[in-house]
Amino acid sequence: MIIRQIEVTPVAFRDPPLLNAAGVHEPWALRTVVEVITDEGLSGLGETYGDLEHLTKVRECAQVLVGLDVHATNEMYARISAVVGDVVTDMHGLTGMATQEKSVDRVFAAFEVACLDIRGKAAGVPVVDLLGGRVRDAVPYSAYLFYKWAAHPGAEPDRFGEALDPAGVVAQAALLIKEYGFTSIKLKGGVFPPEQEIEAIEALHEAFPGLPLRLDPNAAWTPETSIRVGRELEGKLEYLEDPTPDIPGMARVAAEVPMPLATNMCVVTREHLPPAIAQQAIRVLLLDHHYWGGLVRSAHVASLCATFGLELSMHSNSHLGISLAAMTHLAAATPNLTHACDTHTPWQNGQDVVAPGSLRFVDGAVPVPSGHGLGVELDRDALAVMHEQYLTCGITSRDDTTYMRRFDPAFTTRRASW
Amino acid sequence: MIIRQIEVTPVAFRDPPLLNAAGVHEPWALRTVVEVITDEGLSGLGETYGDLEHLTKVRECAQVLVGLDVHATNEMYARISAVVGDVVTDMHGLTGMATQEKSVDRVFAAFEVACLDIRGKAAGVPVVDLLGGRVRDAVPYSAYLFYKWAAHPGAEPDRFGEALDPAGVVAQAALLIKEYGFTSIKLKGGVFPPEQEIEAIEALHEAFPGLPLRLDPNAAWTPETSIRVGRELEGKLEYLEDPTPDIPGMARVAAEVPMPLATNMCVVTREHLPPAIAQQAIRVLLLDHHYWGGLVRSAHVASLCATFGLELSMHSNSHLGISLAAMTHLAAATPNLTHACDTHTPWQNGQDVVAPGSLRFVDGAVPVPSGHGLGVELDRDALAVMHEQYLTCGITSRDDTTYMRRFDPAFTTRRASW
Ligand SMILES: [Mg+2]
Ligand SMILES: [Mg+2]
Repeated sequence: MIIRQIEVTPVAFRDPPLLNAAGVHEPWALRTVVEVITDEGLSGLGETYGDLEHLTKVRECAQVLVGLDVHATNEMYARISAVVGDVVTDMHGLTGMATQEKSVDRVFAAFEVACLDIRGKAAGVPVVDLLGGRVRDAVPYSAYLFYKWAAHPGAEPDRFGEALDPAGVVAQAALLIKEYGFTSIKLKGGVFPPEQEIEAIEALHEAFPGLPLRLDPNAAWTPETSIRVGRELEGKLEYLEDPTPDIPGMARVAAEVPMPLATNMCVVTREHLPPAIAQQAIRVLLLDHHYWGGLVRSAHVASLCATFGLELSMHSNSHLGISLAAMTHLAAATPNLTHACDTHTPWQNGQDVVAPGSLRFVDGAVPVPSGHGLGVELDRDALAVMHEQYLTCGITSRDDTTYMRRFDPAFTTRRASW
Repeated sequence: MIIRQIEVTPVAFRDPPLLNAAGVHEPWALRTVVEVITDEGLSGLGETYGDLEHLTKVRECAQVLVGLDVHATNEMYARISAVVGDVVTDMHGLTGMATQEKSVDRVFAAFEVACLDIRGKAAGVPVVDLLGGRVRDAVPYSAYLFYKWAAHPGAEPDRFGEALDPAGVVAQAALLIKEYGFTSIKLKGGVFPPEQEIEAIEALHEAFPGLPLRLDPNAAWTPETSIRVGRELEGKLEYLEDPTPDIPGMARVAAEVPMPLATNMCVVTREHLPPAIAQQAIRVLLLDHHYWGGLVRSAHVASLCATFGLELSMHSNSHLGISLAAMTHLAAATPNLTHACDTHTPWQNGQDVVAPGSLRFVDGAVPVPSGHGLGVELDRDALAVMHEQYLTCGITSRDDTTYMRRFDPAFTTRRASW
């Protein structure tokens, strides 16, 4: 099955004003849809970031993959490495440092997923079966709460409402749980001073007794603050995610707080694993196949984590259904992924490039799509609309900080700010 | 592709009197051939150890796998874990300690390889393509030298001749290199006092200038001896393999000798990796899919080694062509397997359960079989003959030590003996 053609289509979809340590989500979220087509006419889908510098690399790499067999992922990786060359930056910084390896892994992942989609279709099995088969029939996701404004400035309020205090956060959780059935909750923090976010967690703890809670301030705190907050939240968190920057900082906090520390910022590529393990900086790694080099390489990392006694969860950025399907197949095949995964799905608010029907939430979990490959189909009309939105929305790279500064010129990103 | 039937066939083939730290090879080597057959009539091959206790577990496990899809390796592993239960011992001790995980991995591997063989056949690709595709077209193997007697006591001399001193070892190397084209050499040591084995290495170094050399005394030396020998052999070894027992002992030696240390004894299952890495006990891991849980799990371990900067080689026990094919596919797909692999192939002396033609050595390397799946076919007549040999040979478990004691009643295994 030789790759005959690759279509790379950037898309934009409406995104609510979700707040984080880097600023606020812009009105449009960007993604790139990759479609790989073989000489036999089979096609496979991948989804990745939409930022221009990354998109440009994806387009360049697509050209050097034509003519390869869909199984030849080692060769694909080598060719992509040669094209990517230097570090491709991540403007928002919410998934940690960009490195050369991570830049390659980010580009490679979309093609790898598309090739697995094709291989699954050809073999007549879902992608989960190419990864060892399911260890769970449905993958639990968490309710991913954000502090948010009622509306983007100058626009109509969205249906999610404002969430700027504990009551707003609890109301948001209630809405997402009602609609999706989530059985665990994550709050994106790093927005307000830690005391206010502690209050929000305490309010969630009271409102949803027994539901595992996570707080992720995206490294907005110093180690001292992290230790203080961690101790105050004893018994209330499943894990505390990236309270502070860097492996040594996390290690210092890990030794002093009662709950596990999790990360998708200080360990984001393979070279970070040895020092993080040696320093006992984390107990939970948030996998993300988009920057860990696709599904098979993520499975390798999962296996490494099992070997070293690290637990697994899964990270999410704004995404569409192709990614949700890929995440679900990977998670379903990963025995030691025992924490609910993160997803931005609710914030898509129904917008998607995949045809409805194959992905759904049942009690907060996504049943593994049963079709061959990823089990999702491209909705070409929706793709065309979203691509048109990309062309006209005026955004080419995610930049939460600059957008925030339009409304708060003094805003600075919250790296170890508190 | 549902597993309908599994045939488990123990076989025996003639083995020369090869000497090692545990004693001497018996006149018959044992293996087990596993044939998995699907409801669609596709069949796949695996090969594993023939020792009775292990064979019994393989047979028990075969029964609980019928009805599973060939992709469902996670479920297979879980079922095999449940059946294997306790530790299954390794009588000879030459591949390190038996552990519960290793016992499961050893049983699982044969079935996993057979399922990959089927998946490759169904997809119309060689197994290497299910592992990421080839990074090399042929896999280099080393000339695996053994001290040996001219013949098993009471039998006719074999064609390899005696090798009990440096001249004999050099002559053996010349024969294997002439026949196979090997471009690196391994000497199995732990047989004679270290001074004699140093002399043999020096003789090889002189006779084959530029060829990488390895010495493997199977932990026959104390750390002190290992350090002394290592220093004496400075500049003459590609790596020194398992000079001394256990991770702390190897770590002590590693810090004091100029060459890398390699192992297939102190790191033989995943739980050994964290302490070996923390203690910097080794620089080269000898993978062996037979006890690392098959090809995909071995690929996971290879990826872990890349992450931690460990180099890779490959270990071998007496084996037949199914294993050689599996080793070759795995090695061809493993970018960081940069040392030549070990193989006992020359000592098979032409005996095999696979039909001739698909496996050959060119300049010491085996070109990746190009057929679908493993690319080897069972020779059913040969299998029947070898199974008959198994039934009549009188050996049910490899025991080099007891056999040696028939001729040297005072013999003791050489664990840190010198
Ligand atoms: Mg995070
Ligand atoms: Mg060895």
